[in-house]
Amino acid sequence: MSGALLDSAEELAAVADSETALGKPRLVGEVGRTAYQLRFFGDVLEDGGYLEATIDHAGESDIGPVPDLRRILQAVGPVAVFGASNFPFAFSTLGGDTASALAAGCAVVVKAHPSHPETSIATMKAIRVPLAELGVPADIIQIVHGQEAGRHLVAHPAVRAVGFTGSVAGGAALARVAHSRSDPIPFYGELGSVNPLIVTPRAAAERGMDIGQGFAESFSLGAGQFCTKPGLAFIPAGAAGDELASAAARTVSKMSGSHLLNAGIRDAYTLGVLQMGGLPNVSVVAEGSSGGRAVPHMLLSMTSTTFRSTNLEECFGPVALMVRYDHIDDLLDCLHLLAGSLAAALHAGEQEDVRGLSSALSEKVGRVVFDGWPTGVAVSWAMEHGGPWPATNSLHTSVGSTAIRRFVRPISFQNAPEAVLPPELRDGEVTVPTRINGTMVLPVIAPRSA
Amino acid sequence: MSGALLDSAEELAAVADSETALGKPRLVGEVGRTAYQLRFFGDVLEDGGYLEATIDHAGESDIGPVPDLRRILQAVGPVAVFGASNFPFAFSTLGGDTASALAAGCAVVVKAHPSHPETSIATMKAIRVPLAELGVPADIIQIVHGQEAGRHLVAHPAVRAVGFTGSVAGGAALARVAHSRSDPIPFYGELGSVNPLIVTPRAAAERGMDIGQGFAESFSLGAGQFCTKPGLAFIPAGAAGDELASAAARTVSKMSGSHLLNAGIRDAYTLGVLQMGGLPNVSVVAEGSSGGRAVPHMLLSMTSTTFRSTNLEECFGPVALMVRYDHIDDLLDCLHLLAGSLAAALHAGEQEDVRGLSSALSEKVGRVVFDGWPTGVAVSWAMEHGGPWPATNSLHTSVGSTAIRRFVRPISFQNAPEAVLPPELRDGEVTVPTRINGTMVLPVIAPRSA
Repeated sequence: MSGALLDSAEELAAVADSETALGKPRLVGEVGRTAYQLRFFGDVLEDGGYLEATIDHAGESDIGPVPDLRRILQAVGPVAVFGASNFPFAFSTLGGDTASALAAGCAVVVKAHPSHPETSIATMKAIRVPLAELGVPADIIQIVHGQEAGRHLVAHPAVRAVGFTGSVAGGAALARVAHSRSDPIPFYGELGSVNPLIVTPRAAAERGMDIGQGFAESFSLGAGQFCTKPGLAFIPAGAAGDELASAAARTVSKMSGSHLLNAGIRDAYTLGVLQMGGLPNVSVVAEGSSGGRAVPHMLLSMTSTTFRSTNLEECFGPVALMVRYDHIDDLLDCLHLLAGSLAAALHAGEQEDVRGLSSALSEKVGRVVFDGWPTGVAVSWAMEHGGPWPATNSLHTSVGSTAIRRFVRPISFQNAPEAVLPPELRDGEVTVPTRINGTMVLPVIAPRSA
Repeated sequence: MSGALLDSAEELAAVADSETALGKPRLVGEVGRTAYQLRFFGDVLEDGGYLEATIDHAGESDIGPVPDLRRILQAVGPVAVFGASNFPFAFSTLGGDTASALAAGCAVVVKAHPSHPETSIATMKAIRVPLAELGVPADIIQIVHGQEAGRHLVAHPAVRAVGFTGSVAGGAALARVAHSRSDPIPFYGELGSVNPLIVTPRAAAERGMDIGQGFAESFSLGAGQFCTKPGLAFIPAGAAGDELASAAARTVSKMSGSHLLNAGIRDAYTLGVLQMGGLPNVSVVAEGSSGGRAVPHMLLSMTSTTFRSTNLEECFGPVALMVRYDHIDDLLDCLHLLAGSLAAALHAGEQEDVRGLSSALSEKVGRVVFDGWPTGVAVSWAMEHGGPWPATNSLHTSVGSTAIRRFVRPISFQNAPEAVLPPELRDGEVTVPTRINGTMVLPVIAPRSA
């Protein structure tokens, strides 16, 4: 399946570029990421740790006899996946939600994003032959189009869980449908996130210009249409912070305008920038060029005092707001006011003690990035792409190995005859990481034959 | 804490008996279970596997360089716990939800059940001194009373998750409060469950009388006020099934009346039995004695044809319904119609192949019990006490080690300096089961000194 995607990468990217204007190089790369992600879940399945296989043999406890109990996670059933606008491959038809649901053993019905319907169809076509060659029923993945179909999908009795990447409003509306069914189902929404960037005074003094330039580039990546865009930066007041801000402003000023994913996002961006610019004591620090349908990249600034009375929400697109703070306590106070985000980035000085700041950020986000940028989400075992509301409405990730946990549920077998047990729960050599009578036991890895 | 509970067991049971009429022996036993559960979570913490510690070192992947990423689960924040009526200790103030939330590192606010407010207060008092001796802040657990306070609790900005055991209607109402907050929080409800019992024709032929008697005793345990009560039994039509039904009926007929937990439950039971008895083609097979405020134990019966057009819900109290089926396909058809349950019990013949039945039940429940009774929920590593709606609204358990997963959320640290990392994520000898670069690594267990 992943091979078929890679073989069609140029062709798929061409279709996607015509629908999204994200550029062929980026889109070819995204197809690669999507194929990698599908293969990665193959590793997750081979490892089998996600099954949480657990065996308690019958015995005595302090409160009496206990039966033989064996627990495993099994597929929850068909999953509805709502593709995102901004990653027409990696967070869409065959993206992370679909890959993790398929890996869990669930059939998937994708609600195609209206920004790239042809890309969605082309992606489905690309895997038709390889699926058939694998003997997988073609209807293991199906696709529907349109808002009304999406609502029906979430309400459909056969659907057992929903994976969604999109806006807070859209997610909240579908969550209501999921929760008001006669049999409510889990709704996993990856929603809105401002992704705070924190620069300490020492970091600003040591490498303010580099950070300023990096910040401008990070929030402009993909025309600011990344869910991990650092949309809010806490920069110290004073000379070092000024220099950082100037470097960011210079970088932004030189940027040419961007085409956003669709007219709705462009209008929301224009309105969002207007509203942000209309807040009291906000100044526009830099504006890139625009023209035609291209929107300018924008950098704004306010004081921490103003920030405290502002209820900032994510603005999708190439805009970021700098908050100039006076000292670390002032910064910490601001951080406590933040809503949840997917990620935070913390830039500190050489050998600086940042335990307090890291701890404050840990309360607010799913990932803390040190001396780097939140954009760029690795597909790996330790990735967390989630966070407190409104980043997500769940205690799970939508990227990385543990994304699979959203689409499996536990089942225990009590005093079961061996024949009914899944192979991983039978006695004998363990084939997956297994907890036996409370102790983890790992399979012996057979050396690969030469 | 668990020691203090055991020391006060007699005293606590006396208070609880005066409020619940569950009987001192059972209540003393329940205090023991509650203390055991608290100690068990000590084992879970010591093991540390629940942290899902994961370390990906920086390196190269097929799609480019990946950063150093380290993931762990951390406490979600203060948890609201709604105690159940039927287990004034094990599913109440210091019950499973509280134990797992405390183990996760969360403070807890208990909404006391109105059926046993004094028991709740006495339980809190019993642990005041030992908590102080441990240096734990006394307000790590707090208690509120009344429905209005409960609603406020779920809506309170500081509360980050809710554990609830109770009725479908009560749970659904509170879930709505949790989901309609400006920052929705997870609501974990353990709600209604009929817990089907399945007896195959061969089992009925081999030991119908034993099964019939055991069934009557199981659904009558605790006056039928167990969330795992087998409220619905599929018994073959014909002579062997008749004999089983007669044995169940004889056992029920000899039972004296029970006092239910409160007037509301008694009224609901009386109404539920009336409604069930009023269904077309239902017959009352046996009725125990009653008198005063004691209600009779009841056994009813219907055909599988009638069952197919009946929408059966849990009726709390000592009543069960037998469905007489004609053959295995008829039985499988009925099972497909079932809503979710916490547990199912499957009684089969010697060496009978029950893979098909087990598989059908696995779709509907969180635990399949073979040749036994669903009542009796072990506190262990492999227990699953959950299941599809309306058994629960989540993909988690509320009993056993993994109940802790409800109250922790993942966080990843990217390129973090060692000083900010939780000890479990630092390089060096692993102290908890840790996945490093995709491979599970277990701590070396030091031999205990003699």
